Amino acid sequence: MRSIQQSFQVHFQYGVYFTEGLFKPVNPLLVNVLQQDGHATARKLLFVIDSGVAAAHPSLVQNIEAYATHHAGAVTLLAKPLVVPGGEASKNDPQLVQDLLEAVNDFGVCRHSYLVAIGGGALLDMAGYAAAIAHRGIRLVRIPTTVLSQNDSGVGVKNSVNAFHKKNFLGTFAPPFAVINDSDFLLTLEDRDWRAGMAEAIKVALIKDAAFYTSIRQDAAKLVARDMGAMQDQIFRCAQMHMEHISGGDPFEKGSSRPLDFGHWAAHKLEQLTNYDLRHGEAVAIGIALDVVYATLAGMLSQEECEDILTLLTDLGFALYIPELSQQAPGAENRLLILNGLNEFREHLGGQLTIMLLTKIGQGVEVHHMDEALLTKAVALLQERHQQQQEKAPAQTV
Amino acid sequence: MRSIQQSFQVHFQYGVYFTEGLFKPVNPLLVNVLQQDGHATARKLLFVIDSGVAAAHPSLVQNIEAYATHHAGAVTLLAKPLVVPGGEASKNDPQLVQDLLEAVNDFGVCRHSYLVAIGGGALLDMAGYAAAIAHRGIRLVRIPTTVLSQNDSGVGVKNSVNAFHKKNFLGTFAPPFAVINDSDFLLTLEDRDWRAGMAEAIKVALIKDAAFYTSIRQDAAKLVARDMGAMQDQIFRCAQMHMEHISGGDPFEKGSSRPLDFGHWAAHKLEQLTNYDLRHGEAVAIGIALDVVYATLAGMLSQEECEDILTLLTDLGFALYIPELSQQAPGAENRLLILNGLNEFREHLGGQLTIMLLTKIGQGVEVHHMDEALLTKAVALLQERHQQQQEKAPAQTV
Repeated sequence: MRSIQQSFQVHFQYGVYFTEGLFKPVNPLLVNVLQQDGHATARKLLFVIDSGVAAAHPSLVQNIEAYATHHAGAVTLLAKPLVVPGGEASKNDPQLVQDLLEAVNDFGVCRHSYLVAIGGGALLDMAGYAAAIAHRGIRLVRIPTTVLSQNDSGVGVKNSVNAFHKKNFLGTFAPPFAVINDSDFLLTLEDRDWRAGMAEAIKVALIKDAAFYTSIRQDAAKLVARDMGAMQDQIFRCAQMHMEHISGGDPFEKGSSRPLDFGHWAAHKLEQLTNYDLRHGEAVAIGIALDVVYATLAGMLSQEECEDILTLLTDLGFALYIPELSQQAPGAENRLLILNGLNEFREHLGGQLTIMLLTKIGQGVEVHHMDEALLTKAVALLQERHQQQQEKAPAQTV
Repeated sequence: MRSIQQSFQVHFQYGVYFTEGLFKPVNPLLVNVLQQDGHATARKLLFVIDSGVAAAHPSLVQNIEAYATHHAGAVTLLAKPLVVPGGEASKNDPQLVQDLLEAVNDFGVCRHSYLVAIGGGALLDMAGYAAAIAHRGIRLVRIPTTVLSQNDSGVGVKNSVNAFHKKNFLGTFAPPFAVINDSDFLLTLEDRDWRAGMAEAIKVALIKDAAFYTSIRQDAAKLVARDMGAMQDQIFRCAQMHMEHISGGDPFEKGSSRPLDFGHWAAHKLEQLTNYDLRHGEAVAIGIALDVVYATLAGMLSQEECEDILTLLTDLGFALYIPELSQQAPGAENRLLILNGLNEFREHLGGQLTIMLLTKIGQGVEVHHMDEALLTKAVALLQERHQQQQEKAPAQTV
């Protein structure tokens, strides 16, 4: 029997840049980044902007057009920037992806042109998916505008939309051409979005870096007070750890292990159960709390460290319980609906169920089974804790 | 200004295996190939079969089920094999991709399960696309059933469907888990499908390997007589050259060069103009003829080698002219519609127009401009040649 063995490596590289005032004509960053392509002529750009960002920055479209005019030798706009809905709910609407693909076709965006996406993680996920499947991949520059997208989802290699009521059912692994984090976009965030993204920083600190956890804890009051320097530092370190994890491990997730999804199995399910009213980061905070309490009940994590983590999350303003956690599965009395998230998580990743749990702050361990009775107990404990806090200070945990 | 540079390699590997009687219970190949995954338990398979193949092999579904029963410890079927339309026209119907994704969802196909696709290049393209975007990539085993898919498209790293009336507008680069070429499927091919795939072998021989071209020329009579040994040899060598090209160059086509698309700019357009009635290989044969005549008119290729190539193509039974070649562009008098294919080709690949032309048999050279007047003349010469041949022997060039 004859056979031919194929084997090759593909090298991927991209930079994540940190700036302020990206579209001020004097800021050369975007042009410098794009000029890495070595094109002799002006490169073609199609901007896609999250409608929430466009609303919070009414002069953004105008600023982009002025920037392109100022740098006409280096960049040219294929069309007026498109303003499209963002937020996780937009990932449920297949027409939005179709609209982006139509724009790619209508405006002649080719593999050597750029889709420049400005928005939160959901918009970047959706635009990145469209960019990845059009012409087998057009170049994508991500300009994340939320804490969460600047420190986590926006700096990685994934894109996705939801389908069949499952989060991220469709998507690809497709590294961006570049990522530019402009902290000016954080100024206009609602408090809940400023807060939500910190859940990913806490997540990565908890599983990998106790010193980073300690620094977040020390900065907690500043972060609540929206100190930009503290936030920039947190975002930089979180992005760095996220990226080191990708390059050091299994970038395209061929195996079953996914440590960065600590706290995420429940988070994905809670987002769906709340019809995506819950922000991803808010859901991750609850998911972390649940798995931390679970690990403590299972004897893996100390009661003291568990309390430390729950306190930090609460101090930062996260609610660690919502009624959807206690929702019963239809037709299965006394079984929590949230538990279905375990199987959906396994199915999405494939293979064996693999869940990261903590043994101590800064140290994770993977398990392949979660005890449903213990999880149910963990939910009850979070609910109890939440009620006690509401009685003490009802305004603190929105 | 702070920045973080990301850089990593991803290693891809897969085998292409050649066999006969793949689903005879005694043939261990499929199980052996799948067992490379190291799973301790039976791996889950979802079969997707080209309806044309299912019709030509009425016992195929039953044979697959019997094979799975015989090898129950190694494989398990997640559902009865799905029979779906194949052929290039099926790549125009977005509902077919949607149906496959629904099946992936309904039957719980995860990243460690396998979509096993059996069919011609179009079915493999479509099923491969669905596999690539579901869960960011489920494992794909391709079982190509035509000459063209066994020697070319089925052994590579691409998938696609058509959109916006453009061939392969949507797709990704996604290497398969494995490819299995079973020559038994070639026995039931219509003559035109047996013939069409040889265009890709001639293509790769012309640009890379004069000795391979000579061997095809020597085997021409055998190939016309459907000698399986000669075809197996041709498929093996063509697949090998195709795969060497991928691993030796730019597997995910980040640059503008695409030498394996010799003859393809016109072929893609002709497929579209004939509403995909023309087989891809038939279109490639015309595309090769057109670019060979063009290169000769441009003084790059000798008249003698040009005639040698056109004669071989004709001897194998290819028609080198169809009326769509002469179709006028709407609203542009005396301009051939086929010329639009140049820009569409550039747009799909992106960047600069890059077309491979021959300087001699076995030796290609890239050009970045095609002269429209010369191309129009080349079309006229092919038309003239075709008419002369039809007058001589009308039945030979169907």
